[in-house]
Amino acid sequence: MDEIVTLDYGSGGKKTSELIEKLMVPAFSNPALAALGDGAVLPEMKGELAFSTDSFVVDPIFFPGGNIGKLAVCGTVNDLAMCGAVPRYLSLGAVIEEGLPMADLEKIIHSIAETAARAGVRVVTGDTKVVERGRGDKIYLNTAGIGVVKYPGLSPAAIRPGDKVLLSGTAGDHGTAIMLARSELGLESSLQSDCMPLHALAAAACEAGGVHVLRDPTRGGVATTLNEFCEGQNFGIELEEAAVPVREDVRAACELLGLDALYCANEGKLLAVVSPERADAVLAALRATPGGENAAVIGTVTERWPGRVALHTAFGGSRVLTKLAGAQLPRIC
Amino acid sequence: MDEIVTLDYGSGGKKTSELIEKLMVPAFSNPALAALGDGAVLPEMKGELAFSTDSFVVDPIFFPGGNIGKLAVCGTVNDLAMCGAVPRYLSLGAVIEEGLPMADLEKIIHSIAETAARAGVRVVTGDTKVVERGRGDKIYLNTAGIGVVKYPGLSPAAIRPGDKVLLSGTAGDHGTAIMLARSELGLESSLQSDCMPLHALAAAACEAGGVHVLRDPTRGGVATTLNEFCEGQNFGIELEEAAVPVREDVRAACELLGLDALYCANEGKLLAVVSPERADAVLAALRATPGGENAAVIGTVTERWPGRVALHTAFGGSRVLTKLAGAQLPRIC
Repeated sequence: MDEIVTLDYGSGGKKTSELIEKLMVPAFSNPALAALGDGAVLPEMKGELAFSTDSFVVDPIFFPGGNIGKLAVCGTVNDLAMCGAVPRYLSLGAVIEEGLPMADLEKIIHSIAETAARAGVRVVTGDTKVVERGRGDKIYLNTAGIGVVKYPGLSPAAIRPGDKVLLSGTAGDHGTAIMLARSELGLESSLQSDCMPLHALAAAACEAGGVHVLRDPTRGGVATTLNEFCEGQNFGIELEEAAVPVREDVRAACELLGLDALYCANEGKLLAVVSPERADAVLAALRATPGGENAAVIGTVTERWPGRVALHTAFGGSRVLTKLAGAQLPRIC
Repeated sequence: MDEIVTLDYGSGGKKTSELIEKLMVPAFSNPALAALGDGAVLPEMKGELAFSTDSFVVDPIFFPGGNIGKLAVCGTVNDLAMCGAVPRYLSLGAVIEEGLPMADLEKIIHSIAETAARAGVRVVTGDTKVVERGRGDKIYLNTAGIGVVKYPGLSPAAIRPGDKVLLSGTAGDHGTAIMLARSELGLESSLQSDCMPLHALAAAACEAGGVHVLRDPTRGGVATTLNEFCEGQNFGIELEEAAVPVREDVRAACELLGLDALYCANEGKLLAVVSPERADAVLAALRATPGGENAAVIGTVTERWPGRVALHTAFGGSRVLTKLAGAQLPRIC
């Protein structure tokens, strides 16, 4: 193949076939994809299905802890897992800017294949477009996914006052890692995106019982997701600032960059709202699962702050955490 | 909402919610979407599923006969229909360039809703990202779709020598319409994209029986799709140039622009390879279905040209039609 991706690779002709047959099909090797039909034909799946999609426009496309390909798998796998589903199949759409080095595309595709294998999903159908230089930004990806619902009924509508709010690990790792990678400060740092598939953590939480809703706090972070739970409801959420796990280097980066870890994106963390009786069991289940070692109970559902998220600060004060108002960080996922 | 789409609308915060709640949810009104979970939960579907995706980067985003939104629905609905499936659900991912007029976005979203209703599919899950000015081109869309396979076994592997090749209407309408819309020639023309959902034509053909494979000849056109059928096989396809329906205005535009209608994209046509015994019945079924009035038998599967597509020209000669080698037309879908 050529050393860079040219418009010809998106023409639907010979070069497109070459890209699909030399790169995509071997990387994602599976019979549904190899049939190369207009779509994949999948065996019957019993039960309700979960269906989700996400587009990925992260800048930079390679960052500490991952790249846009890994992110594209995790994003959709995690959305399916948050529906109580076992993720099964992914589609992959790529919009590539003319001039992307072929080696970068190969790295991204292999990362997609590796992450998909880790998450137990298969990439069964896809599409590639190439746009002229200056009409894109290296590469944009879209994944859509299908999963089979194993734990039905997860919904903000199931939340009750008294429920506990659990976070599966440290807050803000992804957003701060991306921001620091993008900054021109030239800082050396240990920051890494937390980007990872959450299917195992979600299953562990659900198996422990009492889970009312799961959500992965990506864009807008923990604060925005909790606000979405409360909006227009007759309950609120009280958050204990001191209980929210935040890595020391993330805390330092937030101070430096003027960010708030509670509004920074996570790509490998879940929020679980759990009945008070099962909160300890779910916490233990999360902590016993890889990636959940730092899980914590960070708050409680309350009737005292209807429709709102209240943060009790480490200094003994309280303030309302609103939804992210504008773009704290554009292009983080 | 603001008059233009700003980066804030892609932040995941308040503005994103506003866009979803004021524009998307009302336009696509359905319970699975309105739940606004991380994904849609769909009722059990019996039988094999078809799953397909496409990204849309067409330039211009509004063109005679459609727009990028209509195209995004048709593209995926048609891929599902070509798998012998009844299209059921769509996901929608949008990557919007900062500065897109909100009125344009509204037109596109309403066109998506209207086309989805016409095709009998529901948009149940979605995602919106906004990229900085100059990092996109107004709007890129991705749709993925799920359908239930009603006519199983459609595959190029089912093609046999003697089979007839049918085209459901005129060739090259979409590609030439886009190219003329894009040209700076300032020509007035009657050309329109043929962009339409093909689920009804596909069902009509399959109900008539004897269909071995269906495919919609989009990028690369009729010539490229027929080549994909033959590649590496011990059969070829003989195409009768005079039998291929081409609109007079498309023929004229092709001459003017130096294009070949057989390589120009179609977005509302299907190719069917059918057993010789059922070819007349399938032709009649296509012609009796709206959008299939100009259907024609355009060729025959043959052992004489293994692995190749041979065009018998109107002047009595023959030549091999290869796959599209480069990009005849970039950004046409």
